Amino acid sequence: MANLNSSFSNLKQRYLFALIAEKTSAYSKNELINLGIGDIARPLLSPIADAVSHAVYEMTCVDTLKGYGPETGYSFLKKAILENEYEKLNFQEHEIFISEGINPEITVFHELISSPLKVGLQDPCYPAYHDSLVIGGLINPKNKPSYFNSSELSPFFPSIPKEKLDLIYLCSPNNPTGVALNRTELKAWVDYALENESIILYDGAYESFIRSPDVPKSIYEIENAKYCAVEFRSFSKSAGFTGLRCGYVVCPDTIEKNNLNLNQLWTKYKTIRSNGVSYPVQKGAEKTFDPEVKKLLKNQIDSYLDQTKFLKQALSELGLATFGGIDAPFIFLKTPEGYTSWEFFDFLLQEHKIVVVPGSGFGQNGEGYVRLSGLITESTFTRAKMKFEQLVKCGLYETHR
Amino acid sequence: MANLNSSFSNLKQRYLFALIAEKTSAYSKNELINLGIGDIARPLLSPIADAVSHAVYEMTCVDTLKGYGPETGYSFLKKAILENEYEKLNFQEHEIFISEGINPEITVFHELISSPLKVGLQDPCYPAYHDSLVIGGLINPKNKPSYFNSSELSPFFPSIPKEKLDLIYLCSPNNPTGVALNRTELKAWVDYALENESIILYDGAYESFIRSPDVPKSIYEIENAKYCAVEFRSFSKSAGFTGLRCGYVVCPDTIEKNNLNLNQLWTKYKTIRSNGVSYPVQKGAEKTFDPEVKKLLKNQIDSYLDQTKFLKQALSELGLATFGGIDAPFIFLKTPEGYTSWEFFDFLLQEHKIVVVPGSGFGQNGEGYVRLSGLITESTFTRAKMKFEQLVKCGLYETHR
Repeated sequence: MANLNSSFSNLKQRYLFALIAEKTSAYSKNELINLGIGDIARPLLSPIADAVSHAVYEMTCVDTLKGYGPETGYSFLKKAILENEYEKLNFQEHEIFISEGINPEITVFHELISSPLKVGLQDPCYPAYHDSLVIGGLINPKNKPSYFNSSELSPFFPSIPKEKLDLIYLCSPNNPTGVALNRTELKAWVDYALENESIILYDGAYESFIRSPDVPKSIYEIENAKYCAVEFRSFSKSAGFTGLRCGYVVCPDTIEKNNLNLNQLWTKYKTIRSNGVSYPVQKGAEKTFDPEVKKLLKNQIDSYLDQTKFLKQALSELGLATFGGIDAPFIFLKTPEGYTSWEFFDFLLQEHKIVVVPGSGFGQNGEGYVRLSGLITESTFTRAKMKFEQLVKCGLYETHR
Repeated sequence: MANLNSSFSNLKQRYLFALIAEKTSAYSKNELINLGIGDIARPLLSPIADAVSHAVYEMTCVDTLKGYGPETGYSFLKKAILENEYEKLNFQEHEIFISEGINPEITVFHELISSPLKVGLQDPCYPAYHDSLVIGGLINPKNKPSYFNSSELSPFFPSIPKEKLDLIYLCSPNNPTGVALNRTELKAWVDYALENESIILYDGAYESFIRSPDVPKSIYEIENAKYCAVEFRSFSKSAGFTGLRCGYVVCPDTIEKNNLNLNQLWTKYKTIRSNGVSYPVQKGAEKTFDPEVKKLLKNQIDSYLDQTKFLKQALSELGLATFGGIDAPFIFLKTPEGYTSWEFFDFLLQEHKIVVVPGSGFGQNGEGYVRLSGLITESTFTRAKMKFEQLVKCGLYETHR
């Protein structure tokens, strides 16, 4: 008799976005200024659509049809990634794995590691890391993850743990805080992992937003990281692929433990459990590395960053403390004294028709914060700008004083 | 210290297709008649490419851009599937899960079942079922799967086991044998599963090739199957999507065990570990249900079946015993006495430049058989036809007598 996996019962119900939807349902969409978005707001660039379209028509001819592709991705895309993203880093094609995005890969990668294991997570962080470990039975009431302590400098720079951890999830720039690790901080993590023989799963979903020269875009800019870290990247935010679905994993062949090689294991895993990523989507992803398209994409990201910068500046002028929002499209805003995350959410919604995301939805340490996003359309930004200019003039509490 | 998952060491090295590639490398592609193909050979239909292309251009406009889609798939595609494939079966949208194909879903579905568990597999069968259970640690030297005994009627109709199994993988029409279960046989499996509270994972990758009236296209045509079976379907073979990637899982909400509901678990699983399938690909999949496109697709499948039928007939005329090839594009051919699978592979290659797949690569019971595929281009078929007509005239061994 089959029983169902009771690990699922250890999942916390997450009502975050459902509750936001419920609370905002009383308003018409047009009257709200929605800064709660984690999705893209700029359309796909036409040359990328052309590449996808061209590829799908290739498939309509018997001489150029594409059937099953390589399970780990086409060579043309791996080459483009190596040349454009890892130019100085000497990786080879077999160390690049094309995927449908970061999520489906980073949520199963723990299967390559021997269990039980001691896991370390940022708090707040993207909830899927935690939840996928719960499904896998690796996090349960008897085996809880370690949450990194905050450093004294900033509540959202994860400080190096004293205990030994096996598997570490780092996201930089982090979602939801928008805080990125600089070279010194990231080096401390790599050194820790090398010393403790831990493996770091490095989520670089927002790397294309990094502009500060002292913030590495890849963990492999840190010496010897290729002996301890796996990097997850995506075209979702860098090129507006959230609806197209493409990303990649860099799994170096230099990580060996108990006579097994991580790269070989991941190759086997993908060969058994995947039939490769859609060919036209891979051709679209390749197009993002065209020099002209790269410029257009940089402008797109810059426009998101300009919007974020404006919001951060306005919040500062209102006397509010903010984190992130420099190398990421997210601002983590400390709620004014006396407000929990949800209370400030309600205040902003009711008084100013502004929608944010309560930080408490991303972990305990997110309590007392809300997330604002610069991933908004130009028209939403225009309305946000007017609203914030008015707020700076009149104060946050003017309307209900 | 992290160790790597040593379950991977229990994987058998599978050299099947690598060895075929090596053995055929001495010949030019044009002189070979390759009947070893498991991939599609007919191009994608233009109206489907139009739908994909139209959808990707939609994404280039701010008013119609598509970001993250629903994790379990768009409603438009679920509706089309329900109306076209499960018209009389009263499923609802939340019981349909859009995926990138069968492989990535059926190779992880065991995670919903409580382990350790007793697994039953067909032999021969698609190797990824077995290998994914090895990765998951569910098959190992101490916990081996049960392989279904052959019935007396045919070596490839899996007969009902006497022992109690938790999880059963059935593929009908089966790859590699091409043998499909008829209504009576499939009913016996459903009854067994209901009686023993087992769960059947039903792989319907080749259902679009079914033409025999007594062979069900869906397991849910059998009464009460929705209390024990999950069905996996794909557009890969039915519409030439092996390079586009789209499929779906029917996970009824009527399967409950130990106070958990399988549909709810799979919904959570997908919500946590997926960001949905590429939007343009889903629009392409929707187009396959257009009445005109359905006719064209049926013709496409019919042409594959006609090719398969010709090959089967020719093999019979050569005095060889064949299985399958009626409701599937695969023929499982018994090797002439004295030949192992690989020996007959070598004979056909060296004497007749015909490429097949040794049945032993799909399991122990595949020894003594080879797989021939009708999934070939028209030009390959023309050459195959000439060759087989000549063979029927002169005999299989003429050239080396």
